[in-house]
Amino acid sequence: MSAEPFVLQDALDLDARDELAHFSARFELADDLVYLDGNSLGALPRATPARIVEVVRAEWGDDLISSWNKHGWISLPMRVGAKLARLLGAYPDEVIAADSTTVNLFKIVSAAVVLRPGRTIIVSEQRNFGTDLYVVEGLARLLGGKHELRLVNGAAGVAAALAEAGPRVAALVLTHVCYRTGRMLDMAGLTRLAHQQGALAVWDLAHSAGAVPVDLNAAGADFAVGCGYKFLNGGPGAPAFLFAARRHLEAPESARCALQGWLGHARPFAFETAYEAAPGVRRFQVGTPPILSLAALEVGVDIALEAPMEAVRAKSLALGELLIRLIGERCPADHGLQLVSPRDTAQRGSQLCFSHPEAYGIVQALIARRVVGDFRAPNILRLGLTPLYTRFRHMWAAAEALAAVLRDDELQRPEYRTRAAVT
Amino acid sequence: MSAEPFVLQDALDLDARDELAHFSARFELADDLVYLDGNSLGALPRATPARIVEVVRAEWGDDLISSWNKHGWISLPMRVGAKLARLLGAYPDEVIAADSTTVNLFKIVSAAVVLRPGRTIIVSEQRNFGTDLYVVEGLARLLGGKHELRLVNGAAGVAAALAEAGPRVAALVLTHVCYRTGRMLDMAGLTRLAHQQGALAVWDLAHSAGAVPVDLNAAGADFAVGCGYKFLNGGPGAPAFLFAARRHLEAPESARCALQGWLGHARPFAFETAYEAAPGVRRFQVGTPPILSLAALEVGVDIALEAPMEAVRAKSLALGELLIRLIGERCPADHGLQLVSPRDTAQRGSQLCFSHPEAYGIVQALIARRVVGDFRAPNILRLGLTPLYTRFRHMWAAAEALAAVLRDDELQRPEYRTRAAVT
Repeated sequence: MSAEPFVLQDALDLDARDELAHFSARFELADDLVYLDGNSLGALPRATPARIVEVVRAEWGDDLISSWNKHGWISLPMRVGAKLARLLGAYPDEVIAADSTTVNLFKIVSAAVVLRPGRTIIVSEQRNFGTDLYVVEGLARLLGGKHELRLVNGAAGVAAALAEAGPRVAALVLTHVCYRTGRMLDMAGLTRLAHQQGALAVWDLAHSAGAVPVDLNAAGADFAVGCGYKFLNGGPGAPAFLFAARRHLEAPESARCALQGWLGHARPFAFETAYEAAPGVRRFQVGTPPILSLAALEVGVDIALEAPMEAVRAKSLALGELLIRLIGERCPADHGLQLVSPRDTAQRGSQLCFSHPEAYGIVQALIARRVVGDFRAPNILRLGLTPLYTRFRHMWAAAEALAAVLRDDELQRPEYRTRAAVT
Repeated sequence: MSAEPFVLQDALDLDARDELAHFSARFELADDLVYLDGNSLGALPRATPARIVEVVRAEWGDDLISSWNKHGWISLPMRVGAKLARLLGAYPDEVIAADSTTVNLFKIVSAAVVLRPGRTIIVSEQRNFGTDLYVVEGLARLLGGKHELRLVNGAAGVAAALAEAGPRVAALVLTHVCYRTGRMLDMAGLTRLAHQQGALAVWDLAHSAGAVPVDLNAAGADFAVGCGYKFLNGGPGAPAFLFAARRHLEAPESARCALQGWLGHARPFAFETAYEAAPGVRRFQVGTPPILSLAALEVGVDIALEAPMEAVRAKSLALGELLIRLIGERCPADHGLQLVSPRDTAQRGSQLCFSHPEAYGIVQALIARRVVGDFRAPNILRLGLTPLYTRFRHMWAAAEALAAVLRDDELQRPEYRTRAAVT
């Protein structure tokens, strides 16, 4: 298929040879739908409704309070965390499923800052996802304004900031795969640079977990968080996860959770007046875990664990390369789409992002054609690639729809020219 | 039924005349089960499974990402909050459903402390629920040790501490109904005492919401949190709620949420680099809301709103008075149960607590007889009264089971003498 133009049959042939193809039957997705938004909300696993009904009816309904022991609810955050650890290159006792990504970020950034007393600079990227910056700013404000959030851009900017601020840097807080461009940072390399200055490395894996290879311990990461409802298919607002390296869970340099809750206590059911942090990562548990949401997340994580990550990564990149090729071959020459994701696949996560002055309208017009991507202000079209259910024929359909939208006059329609308040 | 001993038929008569009786058909509870643990985990509403399946299959499964708008997911925390407000004597724009009780406590205690700069004392009760104390201690530690958690007991102790520390008190952090005794504090009176010293009053309504009359604005409360999975029947680990009085949501004295997340931003989908708090209570939202769990909570809250609170309160007290009477009439004279809940019904929430040296074994023996209460270390037997599904005949059955357990030798069985790790 090299010099010849790529045709639909080629996509169908790739689907037929795809070793991950059988996974798409594990998800509820209409045949005519091209869902390229799994990086925002993953699809529903077919096994999830039955599992949720079981938790609601048999566990909550019939066994009531006894389910905390009988059905292992009390250990669910640790059990799901141990499973997630296998996707993250972590030990089972380093990961917990709990709270939201943002709340978990607060826990680990505050833990990192406390572990580096006297250091007052936190380095991050200007174009990091808002919540990551807001968390640091909120923490800094709470701590009385001694800390400074220093914002730079790209690996080179980070390296320069670390070199310049040196021993004043408490933590480097970065998102591994950028939500807006799909650019993937070198976790091991940047962590090493942080450590060279004595700073801790905190990683947000929201767009990484389940989508790209992650090896937290090989990279030497100190803390990390990530999202359960994107590539892990845990459902809308699924609990997030939190990673703390073992060395920070043991004396002498033992991390504290600033959000001290009863379920992070060493003996929650002794109802003691004084707080004593639980051993291990359980100290980062806070309140009572949301069982229905955790049960749904577990189903998604179980499926992710069945797929070899090398195959997931290879397919993700093949899907992306095909889409880039098809846009080049099938869209009008003056299509105006600018790839903002790195052209180098080694630096790309599992999504393709394009800028276009009419990006909002394009997303709406694509949705009308049953190709679902999303828009990020001010001008970004995002197309997420979820190898467990994205097919090569979806790349064909997406390129065809894009070509039609860009060729025709439909972007002039008023409904494609006014942004909805929420997208 | 006054002087005559109370008999089973009297209980059945009371059930027949109970204006709330029809609510018990709204819950999935086996006929032979006497469930007196709704103060720990509320029962499953019959409407919940269908609603959850709808959210999972039709909303998440079919409509995927579009559900954030199409099915109002994005406003669910505010919508459920506005409903909760009606149970709490609050305005609809003062309450949000989000996160856990503990995480919400951190938000409001830190907000209160920031609103009272220069004041360094936080007053609470020694016997407050652990998490409330741990949160304050964790916050104080994070803030560098300038703040002191001063622990006293009872309304008199609180009043004395406030009077003594005066203008050094930043906040009073109390639980309205004590988890261990069912004792209910005078919210209005203690809030007034706090305000007299210029301090803010922060209330934990974990054991109050849906169970006893609460009127936050009439009491002048500043902030409050509470639990969704007890008397509100929202399911295991249901989202909690947070209340902030309007006067703290407007300039000049505007409360901040230290956990700054993207969904608490004024314009979450503008993805701005700088944080700007949303107007109103939405600023206390942090990360993406857990939709499955919130949908389940909404079902429970909707049922609670159908029941007039005066009827709920009257029935709760009648159930409690009957149980006390029946224990007196039907248990052996040397039963050893000591009521630790206030004898005065005006000071009692919706549970009865008894101390007994063999409390752990009694709870296990009752469970074996299908009477489910719970144990709180070291020696407390708790029996929760949920007027929506607790029947007068349940009080008869509970007293009969207690009498049998205390009369017979079954407490000598080894399984009743060793505490499980988790209860």
